[in-house]
Amino acid sequence: MTNIQAASRPFPPELVRSVSPALETHTVDRLKEVWTRPGLSFRDRSLISIAALITRGQVAGLGLYTDHALDNGVTPAELSETVLQLAYYAGWANALSATPAMGAVFAARGIAADQLPAEIPDQFLPLDEPAEAQRAKTVGEQFEATAPGLVDYTTRFLFRDLWLRPGLAPRDRSLVTVAALVTASQSAQITFHLTRAMDNGLTREQASEVVTHLAFYAGWPNAMSALPVFRDVFAKREA
Amino acid sequence: MTNIQAASRPFPPELVRSVSPALETHTVDRLKEVWTRPGLSFRDRSLISIAALITRGQVAGLGLYTDHALDNGVTPAELSETVLQLAYYAGWANALSATPAMGAVFAARGIAADQLPAEIPDQFLPLDEPAEAQRAKTVGEQFEATAPGLVDYTTRFLFRDLWLRPGLAPRDRSLVTVAALVTASQSAQITFHLTRAMDNGLTREQASEVVTHLAFYAGWPNAMSALPVFRDVFAKREA
Amino acid sequence: MTNIQAASRPFPPELVRSVSPALETHTVDRLKEVWTRPGLSFRDRSLISIAALITRGQVAGLGLYTDHALDNGVTPAELSETVLQLAYYAGWANALSATPAMGAVFAARGIAADQLPAEIPDQFLPLDEPAEAQRAKTVGEQFEATAPGLVDYTTRFLFRDLWLRPGLAPRDRSLVTVAALVTASQSAQITFHLTRAMDNGLTREQASEVVTHLAFYAGWPNAMSALPVFRDVFAKREA
Repeated sequence: MTNIQAASRPFPPELVRSVSPALETHTVDRLKEVWTRPGLSFRDRSLISIAALITRGQVAGLGLYTDHALDNGVTPAELSETVLQLAYYAGWANALSATPAMGAVFAARGIAADQLPAEIPDQFLPLDEPAEAQRAKTVGEQFEATAPGLVDYTTRFLFRDLWLRPGLAPRDRSLVTVAALVTASQSAQITFHLTRAMDNGLTREQASEVVTHLAFYAGWPNAMSALPVFRDVFAKREA
Repeated sequence: MTNIQAASRPFPPELVRSVSPALETHTVDRLKEVWTRPGLSFRDRSLISIAALITRGQVAGLGLYTDHALDNGVTPAELSETVLQLAYYAGWANALSATPAMGAVFAARGIAADQLPAEIPDQFLPLDEPAEAQRAKTVGEQFEATAPGLVDYTTRFLFRDLWLRPGLAPRDRSLVTVAALVTASQSAQITFHLTRAMDNGLTREQASEVVTHLAFYAGWPNAMSALPVFRDVFAKREA
Repeated sequence: MTNIQAASRPFPPELVRSVSPALETHTVDRLKEVWTRPGLSFRDRSLISIAALITRGQVAGLGLYTDHALDNGVTPAELSETVLQLAYYAGWANALSATPAMGAVFAARGIAADQLPAEIPDQFLPLDEPAEAQRAKTVGEQFEATAPGLVDYTTRFLFRDLWLRPGLAPRDRSLVTVAALVTASQSAQITFHLTRAMDNGLTREQASEVVTHLAFYAGWPNAMSALPVFRDVFAKREA
């Protein structure tokens, strides 16, 4: 948010100021402070901010954040796959609702189909078969008898398809997924996905910055509620 | 959504495709796959999809889903009572926010007041007095001293009024309530209401399909977080 | 909402009635019943209703509720600080999204900058240093190693700045914070903030009325899920 043009803000400074002068000052100063922290790149911060906005259905700022994400080095393909990922991890309507704002930015920049990942990739990323077999076994033992359809879709649609799409690196796919989980206070799902994120290359410092950054976008309570889970995942990996 | 007319989609295929070609394909193929699963009727899937959209405040697709619900055999009276039920179980503003889209479909189809349940029914459904006395006793012992007003309203407004309205069968009232709870990750409230739903006639297979279906509408994390509760309710009933 | 003018309702009676005649009757009768309960003033009910609407991103009714809050004795400065408080406790975009509706009411009433709290107050409220030192120590021991940035911001931005702003009394700042936490089912955060609210002067009866009132605005499940936490906080204070 360091280079946001005030003119393109959906809630312009004079409007915010007319309700709370302090909110306008904090919007500029404190978001700048968190965005410029070391430990997480502008690019990563753009991705998780967009994940938070889509997860909460807050489309008003999405055009602006899409513009900045592209300026910050996120590719159109990565944004495209982020929206697809969030259809599964934040809800279908949340992903669809992101398309008008993001589509408008893509159109304005002349980003066309040839810059977007294909419906079905020519080649999927290689699957870590033992890890996936272990995941499927664990979930199957717990829930196969409860919801066989959901267990089947989790394997087929998510772990043998969505996660193997090459348009978004596994580390980044994990990044937006963890951001969605923190934003929605899905503590029960964070352990698996934060572990996976770190297996996929997210460092402990980056993970720490993710939850710090999201305090602003998802609200303090969601960030604070995620901290015990983050602490336990960190401890387990370092044990 | 097998018979969705693309022309009436709030997020048209070409728009979705301009952001993510895969999201458009998955919207068509995967939602079709889940909608056409055996184990839960189109009618029931319409009800729970609408419950999910209202619970999340996602009104953009509500007109389309209302249209399809009516095509799938849901009556105007049942939709009317679903909105009323969700005022209590998803929040008042969520129910009110559903009225423009649903009212527009009703108007277009000439559905008038005589097809909608009266403010106060001529006759309420019979109350299972022993079961209700037990519920009131349990809740009273736990929370009467904490929030007497809420305990009183729960008895008077919900279990001795709302749940006895004849415009929506108890099994269907439970169905939309469980859908709202899964959608909002209200695990602590699912046990009581899923048990009640099954007492009211929802089968285990249908319940399993509800959570599978909602993975798409509420996002995977909400569905996965509900699975342990569903498993435990199933186990307890079969013990 | 006892004195709501039907003409200014975002969802007019005839529209609500066209979907559910009962919903319209309940909107008038039951909201009137809860609003007129003794134990919590109109003013406090206005504040927590607005906190619930902002926390859920339900801006449609926000203009109407802002108007009534001002009629009920909430000052522009208090509304301004409520929005700022919720930027931190409900998410930044939620606070920003409140500004069009609230700003329009302020403009219509000629409420200008001189009636709003300054960006930086001339004088902050005195800090209870021992209590704050204890809070910081507890949080630091738990989470300093997990997310040092978030722990630092919590101290600097929240407890040594936001909470000390004089535009909203600590008891009222706690009131809207607890309302936001109940509305978002943030059980893990309620214990600390309800305790603090009662330390700041919120009575047990008022707290009980808050959760009863919010059942309507946040939905029954959120209110019911908060009850065990309220019960335990009450018990601990009276032990």
